[in-house]
Amino acid sequence: MERINSLMQLLTYLVNFSEAELEIIASCFKPKSFNRNTIILEREEVCKEFYFVYKGCLRTYFLDIEGRERTRYIMLDFNIGTALSSFIYENPSFEYLDALEDTEVLAISYSDFYRLNKELPNWTFFYQKILEMAYSFQNKRIEDLIMLSAKERYEQLIKERPEFIKRLSNKIISSYLDIAQETLSRLKSK
Amino acid sequence: MERINSLMQLLTYLVNFSEAELEIIASCFKPKSFNRNTIILEREEVCKEFYFVYKGCLRTYFLDIEGRERTRYIMLDFNIGTALSSFIYENPSFEYLDALEDTEVLAISYSDFYRLNKELPNWTFFYQKILEMAYSFQNKRIEDLIMLSAKERYEQLIKERPEFIKRLSNKIISSYLDIAQETLSRLKSK
Repeated sequence: MERINSLMQLLTYLVNFSEAELEIIASCFKPKSFNRNTIILEREEVCKEFYFVYKGCLRTYFLDIEGRERTRYIMLDFNIGTALSSFIYENPSFEYLDALEDTEVLAISYSDFYRLNKELPNWTFFYQKILEMAYSFQNKRIEDLIMLSAKERYEQLIKERPEFIKRLSNKIISSYLDIAQETLSRLKSK
Repeated sequence: MERINSLMQLLTYLVNFSEAELEIIASCFKPKSFNRNTIILEREEVCKEFYFVYKGCLRTYFLDIEGRERTRYIMLDFNIGTALSSFIYENPSFEYLDALEDTEVLAISYSDFYRLNKELPNWTFFYQKILEMAYSFQNKRIEDLIMLSAKERYEQLIKERPEFIKRLSNKIISSYLDIAQETLSRLKSK
């Protein structure tokens, strides 16, 4: 119950859902668990689930031409998301989705997600917020990567997402900030 | 009338609007014209309009630390868009919006856009499609910039957007593909 209550809290924070709507939504989410370092979605697989992370850490990333991991998005406790581009269009995914910690989620299937989108106007507004946030986040990321130095990006992360620094390995943080691991170690030691 | 008919065509292509809905929507769009090389939205200004380009070319771009233009999005005839991040959140814009050609548009104001979003469910679905496309486009751009060489990006543009090559200057194309102008000239001459 605690898991579903947390999700309901997040949902009502974003949109003014009625009790009846929340009940319908709650019935669509199923609990799942992933062990640390499990790949949940492989490249070329179609992403068929959307997640609420109750506890743990999910991440989307892709491999560049040299086979290096490029981390796109990180979801810690009480965050929502998925490999969104693949999920939206039912396309083979370019990115991977994995669990970086032992992770407990609530998952909603593609078919339930888009059925709610048709049937519950407030779910449509919830999905709108998700898309608006995802787009703006992506835009901001591109701007930061171009406009800020490695040091500035690291300092911004300390300020805005201190929990990332505490919980994620140097490997993950450096791939998220797009800086070399040695640079990150140097910045951390200062 | 031709302008509004083109917009209605695009809207019904994307969402199954009723005649009555189209009439309400049409009444919200106002014709506007911009001369070639006019900046429509300055940095730090809040973007308060969303555009349907009937004829011409609008573009969003920002300046990097060296003051170079980085082109983000290009709208030729029968395209829609705006400086979306600023428009969504009424934030001071990080990007500029300019007209690269003499351009005729239909513009809808922020207040009308989000009033329709509340009042017309089909407009909400239209906006959802815009956001889904914007997000996926952005994602694909990042992947291409990382995964493809300058040559491959240029060849992809020839294949997917041949009209860009015909209508845009080398300066704009190179800033869109994130390659040096000299590299673009070399690729073009081959």
